[in-house]
Amino acid sequence: MTDCLGDGAGDMTPMDLYEKLTLQGETVRTLKTEKAAKADIDAALQLLLKLKVDYKQVTGQDYKAGCPPSECSVSQDNGPAADGEDMVDPWNVSTTSAKGVDYDKLIVRFGSSKIDQELVDRIERVSGQKAHRFLRRGIFFSHRDMHQVLDAYEKNKSFYLYTGRGPSSEAMHVGHLIPFIFTKWLQDTFDIPLVIQLTDDEKYLWKDLSLEDCHRYAVENAKDIIACGFDVNKTFIFSDLDYMGASPDFYRNVVKIQKHVTFNQVKGIFGFGDSDCIGKIAFPAIQAAPSFSNSFPQIFKGRKDIQCLIPCAIDQDPYFRMTRDVAPRIGYPKPALLHSTFFPALQGAQTKMSASDANSSIFLTDTPKQIKNKVNKHAFSGGKDTVEEHRKYGGNPDVDVSFMYLTFFLEDDEQLEKIRQDYASGALLTGELKKSLIETLQPMITSHQERRKQVTDETVKQFMTPRPLDFNF
Amino acid sequence: MTDCLGDGAGDMTPMDLYEKLTLQGETVRTLKTEKAAKADIDAALQLLLKLKVDYKQVTGQDYKAGCPPSECSVSQDNGPAADGEDMVDPWNVSTTSAKGVDYDKLIVRFGSSKIDQELVDRIERVSGQKAHRFLRRGIFFSHRDMHQVLDAYEKNKSFYLYTGRGPSSEAMHVGHLIPFIFTKWLQDTFDIPLVIQLTDDEKYLWKDLSLEDCHRYAVENAKDIIACGFDVNKTFIFSDLDYMGASPDFYRNVVKIQKHVTFNQVKGIFGFGDSDCIGKIAFPAIQAAPSFSNSFPQIFKGRKDIQCLIPCAIDQDPYFRMTRDVAPRIGYPKPALLHSTFFPALQGAQTKMSASDANSSIFLTDTPKQIKNKVNKHAFSGGKDTVEEHRKYGGNPDVDVSFMYLTFFLEDDEQLEKIRQDYASGALLTGELKKSLIETLQPMITSHQERRKQVTDETVKQFMTPRPLDFNF
Repeated sequence: MTDCLGDGAGDMTPMDLYEKLTLQGETVRTLKTEKAAKADIDAALQLLLKLKVDYKQVTGQDYKAGCPPSECSVSQDNGPAADGEDMVDPWNVSTTSAKGVDYDKLIVRFGSSKIDQELVDRIERVSGQKAHRFLRRGIFFSHRDMHQVLDAYEKNKSFYLYTGRGPSSEAMHVGHLIPFIFTKWLQDTFDIPLVIQLTDDEKYLWKDLSLEDCHRYAVENAKDIIACGFDVNKTFIFSDLDYMGASPDFYRNVVKIQKHVTFNQVKGIFGFGDSDCIGKIAFPAIQAAPSFSNSFPQIFKGRKDIQCLIPCAIDQDPYFRMTRDVAPRIGYPKPALLHSTFFPALQGAQTKMSASDANSSIFLTDTPKQIKNKVNKHAFSGGKDTVEEHRKYGGNPDVDVSFMYLTFFLEDDEQLEKIRQDYASGALLTGELKKSLIETLQPMITSHQERRKQVTDETVKQFMTPRPLDFNF
Repeated sequence: MTDCLGDGAGDMTPMDLYEKLTLQGETVRTLKTEKAAKADIDAALQLLLKLKVDYKQVTGQDYKAGCPPSECSVSQDNGPAADGEDMVDPWNVSTTSAKGVDYDKLIVRFGSSKIDQELVDRIERVSGQKAHRFLRRGIFFSHRDMHQVLDAYEKNKSFYLYTGRGPSSEAMHVGHLIPFIFTKWLQDTFDIPLVIQLTDDEKYLWKDLSLEDCHRYAVENAKDIIACGFDVNKTFIFSDLDYMGASPDFYRNVVKIQKHVTFNQVKGIFGFGDSDCIGKIAFPAIQAAPSFSNSFPQIFKGRKDIQCLIPCAIDQDPYFRMTRDVAPRIGYPKPALLHSTFFPALQGAQTKMSASDANSSIFLTDTPKQIKNKVNKHAFSGGKDTVEEHRKYGGNPDVDVSFMYLTFFLEDDEQLEKIRQDYASGALLTGELKKSLIETLQPMITSHQERRKQVTDETVKQFMTPRPLDFNF
């Protein structure tokens, strides 16, 4: 347990404060139960209230018993966080800035490298393809060891891709597609195999869901993933609940990793505490294992030296910092990474979208009409209050969610730049900007839905069966 | 976390009290740090002192910050330990008494039930068989819910057996056979299926061994286990490293258990600390999972309600106390248990035998000559220093290791009793007693070796393949 004595609230972490508050809550209840003197109860209550104020000050949130501030773990890792810094870990992302998380600061804090123009150019040179818009526009903005992957690729040493998803519900929104859209581009561009992990075990451990539901969501989500157009001959999608019980080699790697990571380490990296279940504590090894090629003997024929490249949102980086720390100690190459920014909620870039709030995002099941209504009603606007003012002063594309969405989905660079300039100058009104977005999203979602309809149970089974892939080393 | 409010100390566990005390200690320090009113500090101190008195009363020990009562907590934990008490947990057994661990005290501390004459008689009645010598002689001395198993059996509700071994080396000694000899008797007597877990993953996590070695030891140990005479049609032997990757149902149960056990709990039960690897912390769920029949769908056809009976040495009880705690919360029946005493080292009953010290025990690979030499040289004697004194005062069979070994292996009750009396009276000399033991062990080990030689790789594969067993429900 964190030592939470002797500090002013100022230099206490949210977790320290949370624990202190929990302790004090228990004290108050104990005093009441034991029918202590009123003065004592009052004094204890007083302290409790003071702590709650401190907590709100530090975390920006109300204290809620039983809900530890897992977002906030320690400086050495995910940040944060001096005052005003962003919170980023696998379960929580938050920022106070309407422009979203400060990604340059995150690169420094996480110790990764920026994807600069030079790297984008090099990817184009090596692959012979125009860089994906996510690279051109800094949506994939950070990396680890990407140059090393390219060095090896230039010497005809291939690599494989690994990405994943936590299936916490049937509903996926457009933001969930980002890693898959980009991964498909990488697969096509470099002609390499891909493994996709669906962490249904993780969702069971973290959420109030049954094993059966988590597994069902995994299979449903797989359909949306397949609809992104992956090549069945080069792609293996797996549910942890299935694959762990289908591959002794995968479990062997999980155990190897689990032997080389202590509770202290996962506490520091993920903010786990003593009252967390042992499943959560051990889980990071399961997300780490697909980073090593011999977890998939059916694909890599037992070889353990094939380099792995992981495209993912930056909030998943803690898992792979841990993985990269363990890798050399168990004789495996460190996985390389490509990190994306977060996809903003319709309401603004302060948070990630939430699958549980239908209005916070565009879902893959939305009708053209729903898309139109949601964008018009909910998309946070950087425009001015009146048309006159807007014409005069121009809008702010940097905080405008419709413009941000176009950055993700509008392929044409010139058209996007023109929209940006026209909006900033006031020539383009908010309604017109939203119309552009609606016209971009509607056909995109409709054709996704059409492709998904064609994904049969048989297709899913094919993708999810452990088997050799088309690939030569 | 255990709710520790609103109970008198009387019905609180040591861990509850420990946590309450820790909380109160923090509160006092917080009040002091914050320079709270003297009256408040005094009131908090008062409560702290009261809790310390309760703690001492319940545990027999002084409260010590940072030292949870892992070993000490009566009902739910492993004990010890007021001064001079025995230590018993899955990794350590020690006592200062030459007679060995005080098992009656252990029953009280672990909260299990004694196997009394009434239960032994009932087992004979229900099974229609003479009780095994391990029951007649108190070698299996403690149980949980054995009456319930027999009640159900009388109503034609069957059960299954689960036991196991941690394969830390190729070498097994006679002590390792105890649970298997007894389990075979139970299997024959009740005509029921048996699963045997080889925890090669555990050995990898705890020892400085490679995964490959642990797995190899598991297969080698399986040969010795098979040589005990188990019926291949009723017995499934599995290595964790293999079976975890071969059975999604097994992994599903592991995850279910892992969701319902916190780090605090395994800390209390097993004494794990923050610097332990996450593999150790999560492992208890893997030893727990075979207690539930739907971990073996190939045997029990998906049924989750078949009662499990676990014969094991008492040091394994912590795993199954945890299992019994979790079972009702995930909708499964609690496993019943039969606990054995420890097999003493040749050098005396103060410790368990060690597979790493060749002279500490009789190994299953020893030649008749080695057996003779080891017994004559190393078996701790309860005899007197000279023949004259021995004839005059008699020997002490209670501390004599040769006599103890005969208790385990000599089938004839009358012969054993005569040896005991003659040794105690001085009529039987130490050399003669040792000769009896040597003559008991030599043919036993020789015929074990002959049976083991007949165990082919094919036989091992048969036992270790997940498959239906002969059994009707």
